[in-house]
Amino acid sequence: MNTWEHKHIIDLSNFSLEDYSTVFELANRFKNLPETGTRKLPALQGKLIATLFFESSTRTRSSFELAAKRLSADIQTFSPSNSAIKKGESPLDTAMTYISMGADILVVRHSSANIAEEISSYIDQRGLSTSILNAGDGLHSHPSQGLLDLFTLTNFFNSKEANPQTLSGKKITIVGDILHSRVARANLWALTAFGANVILCGPESLVPEAFKNFVDAPPTGQKIDPIQNRGKIEISRSLKEALKESDAIITLRLQRERMNSNLITDISSYHNDFGITHKSLEWCNKKVPVLHPGPVNRGVEISSELIEDLSICLINKQVRNGIPVRMALLYLLSQRQSEQIY
Amino acid sequence: MNTWEHKHIIDLSNFSLEDYSTVFELANRFKNLPETGTRKLPALQGKLIATLFFESSTRTRSSFELAAKRLSADIQTFSPSNSAIKKGESPLDTAMTYISMGADILVVRHSSANIAEEISSYIDQRGLSTSILNAGDGLHSHPSQGLLDLFTLTNFFNSKEANPQTLSGKKITIVGDILHSRVARANLWALTAFGANVILCGPESLVPEAFKNFVDAPPTGQKIDPIQNRGKIEISRSLKEALKESDAIITLRLQRERMNSNLITDISSYHNDFGITHKSLEWCNKKVPVLHPGPVNRGVEISSELIEDLSICLINKQVRNGIPVRMALLYLLSQRQSEQIY
Amino acid sequence: MNTWEHKHIIDLSNFSLEDYSTVFELANRFKNLPETGTRKLPALQGKLIATLFFESSTRTRSSFELAAKRLSADIQTFSPSNSAIKKGESPLDTAMTYISMGADILVVRHSSANIAEEISSYIDQRGLSTSILNAGDGLHSHPSQGLLDLFTLTNFFNSKEANPQTLSGKKITIVGDILHSRVARANLWALTAFGANVILCGPESLVPEAFKNFVDAPPTGQKIDPIQNRGKIEISRSLKEALKESDAIITLRLQRERMNSNLITDISSYHNDFGITHKSLEWCNKKVPVLHPGPVNRGVEISSELIEDLSICLINKQVRNGIPVRMALLYLLSQRQSEQIY
Repeated sequence: MNTWEHKHIIDLSNFSLEDYSTVFELANRFKNLPETGTRKLPALQGKLIATLFFESSTRTRSSFELAAKRLSADIQTFSPSNSAIKKGESPLDTAMTYISMGADILVVRHSSANIAEEISSYIDQRGLSTSILNAGDGLHSHPSQGLLDLFTLTNFFNSKEANPQTLSGKKITIVGDILHSRVARANLWALTAFGANVILCGPESLVPEAFKNFVDAPPTGQKIDPIQNRGKIEISRSLKEALKESDAIITLRLQRERMNSNLITDISSYHNDFGITHKSLEWCNKKVPVLHPGPVNRGVEISSELIEDLSICLINKQVRNGIPVRMALLYLLSQRQSEQIY
Repeated sequence: MNTWEHKHIIDLSNFSLEDYSTVFELANRFKNLPETGTRKLPALQGKLIATLFFESSTRTRSSFELAAKRLSADIQTFSPSNSAIKKGESPLDTAMTYISMGADILVVRHSSANIAEEISSYIDQRGLSTSILNAGDGLHSHPSQGLLDLFTLTNFFNSKEANPQTLSGKKITIVGDILHSRVARANLWALTAFGANVILCGPESLVPEAFKNFVDAPPTGQKIDPIQNRGKIEISRSLKEALKESDAIITLRLQRERMNSNLITDISSYHNDFGITHKSLEWCNKKVPVLHPGPVNRGVEISSELIEDLSICLINKQVRNGIPVRMALLYLLSQRQSEQIY
Repeated sequence: MNTWEHKHIIDLSNFSLEDYSTVFELANRFKNLPETGTRKLPALQGKLIATLFFESSTRTRSSFELAAKRLSADIQTFSPSNSAIKKGESPLDTAMTYISMGADILVVRHSSANIAEEISSYIDQRGLSTSILNAGDGLHSHPSQGLLDLFTLTNFFNSKEANPQTLSGKKITIVGDILHSRVARANLWALTAFGANVILCGPESLVPEAFKNFVDAPPTGQKIDPIQNRGKIEISRSLKEALKESDAIITLRLQRERMNSNLITDISSYHNDFGITHKSLEWCNKKVPVLHPGPVNRGVEISSELIEDLSICLINKQVRNGIPVRMALLYLLSQRQSEQIY
């Protein structure tokens, strides 16, 4: 296994090809564990994972907690409904509370883009050993989702190993509300790292032109891009044109709250123009897989029939892969801590 | 132990006498474990039980989770308050999410009558091995409650073993809001299977005449009734008359929401006519036990004094028996899976 | 270790010096466990701790649950949001439900002052072995918080061992809303037991004169005060005067709901008069530590800068110490049960 340098996982913009390989090798090993009759590993026994979900989420929180359980860690969940937040506590103070209680890793989800980063800086300034794993921060990033999508896609094209060559030069179309999607942003860093070219497809209100340059430079505060040759990003306003060239499709959840803000005219016209159905897949020149981060609005961004067509729709595989990918992340952060001297 | 054929547990209408015996033998064994100093068994280690409570419930969810903990299973809880449901996800998609995450058994509660059945059909069509355990679906059924009530009653009359002969020919009165009670429906299948005759007692708005024929034929979709000689059901509008002949009483929670819908005139007249108190028990010709599925409205369907009279009121015993009965169900479903080849 | 006589822990008014020593010796041992590489102990394996938080609380519930996990107990959480309370169940019936399910210890928080006491009496009357640990009951008490504050303070002055001599004759100022604080009341019993003199500081609306006599006699129903020579309580209306003589400061959360009820005029004048800042600490004649039970309103009862000054502010240490102190309490209650014959 390669060296793992990240103390925190906030975004994928700073992931090297070695980082991806390290995560995917481990994820593959964890994924195949049940076949050997072993479902639980003692690796994180006595470690404490706190899941701080300031913004609630069923699937992501459950996925992280199950990953932690498979590694025999202790888990403590924080959610705003039964919380000190109502009493006026800041997210940073909540984080410090769980760190003081002995948390080794904080899995943090928040509706604001910089919270995970802020907490991790605060931790580092104080010389604390706790790791932050960003589980979605505002519109910024959702790295574990980006990783599991990439893992699922590479597995689809090469079931033996998930390596960068698999996607090199492939065209992946991401359809939908890119503007408001941290999943799309995480996908952009991950897919282009593996040399895939990405077509962003949607109306201008949801896919601004500026996204073309999204991976051209590392984000503010990051000195270099560890990836030498990233894939390119282009933008398409026509699903038909985009699909002609696509090797795979990632469609995104249309957040219903957007529908009230005039960003799209109405649901049925959106479904007509950008919904993925068996019919729209006919525009492709080959059989292509369809991914979706869930939860799904059936009949809006994807048809109900397509969800049931397991030869095409990889949603269940994405959910399944979420567990071993997150096990790998928790394991790597925890291993790094054991090697540290503070 | 007898052969266990059920992959899912949705209702008790398809339970044979052998099924009841298998569950009760195991439940008895689990119940007596603490006496041997053993409180936890490794039987379900590494198995994942997901409790999907689309409709919230304290006691049932806790009971299932404790049963799972006693068997060393991993548990993941889903409740609508922190959920993708708000984001428009269907219960079926939520179920598929937890199945994809590796759930072996889904314990499902929902306010609609057919959800548990629907999910189980979907699973079977897809050749998946996950089991569904219905923890209450609309007004349809609540099989684990029916089983623990039957287990508690047979234990009361015969503390050595819970066998069908114990209840054969006995008269059990169920008092209260039968119309809106899935517990009563589960009780009807369970009690009559053991040859008990059931008196349903309440005003016509809560106990329609049609209930007389409730167990005369198996429900739609079920070919045969595995029970040869079921007990009979009769209806009584007078608590006094019903109690004269009763060997045991099951009283049901009066759901306060019914009180607004003109189904009963007011609480105090309901308590006068159908509330169980030490005074109304004088109408019985013998000392009879009183059961209640909880949570209780003290002073409405049952008097506070009666709840405290542990020689008569079996509520705490019902709650206690819930754990070993549910352990038995989880164990049987999980054993069956281990024997399956998929 | 000394003999431990308490079946329930409701308040600190009945704690002897031996009781404090027993708890602190154990807490010290548990606190130093991680250094020996052992983070989990099998001591409470198979035991069931139910946390019944009728009033919600993040930090206290998490702290108890982590303490229980470190001792390998099973945990079942009850909170009102997913609860039978909405269905009209009384707290006593909820408690009996969890006792019937096999709970060995109930950790109870409720907005009413007598609930924990009531449940414990009910348990004793029925000859049940379950222990009650009060985790905050109305304005009455919050014994585990009182213990961890005392433990943190004695550790500050004497890092080797937490013994009563350490605080004897010291002056501890508690600033803020004493009237509405169960934490302050628990602190009063604990601090004076160790011979510390307490200055209560705040406006008369929040610190009534009657508090001077708070520890003069044991509460109703308790025959004797097990402490021979308690420290004294005095009241000060001026923070400047109070701090002149103080060896340590405990500041309390200003509950925002009080601000609407005319008990204080406005937040900024409260912060001016009674907020703890680096500037107000200049009034002290030495360097004194500042404690706060959390969650904090930064800039109200304490300045943000002071929270970050870890040489003075012990908040994180309090949170950290909460785990071993609560482990000690759970351990002692559970040990006592094992020795009982019922």
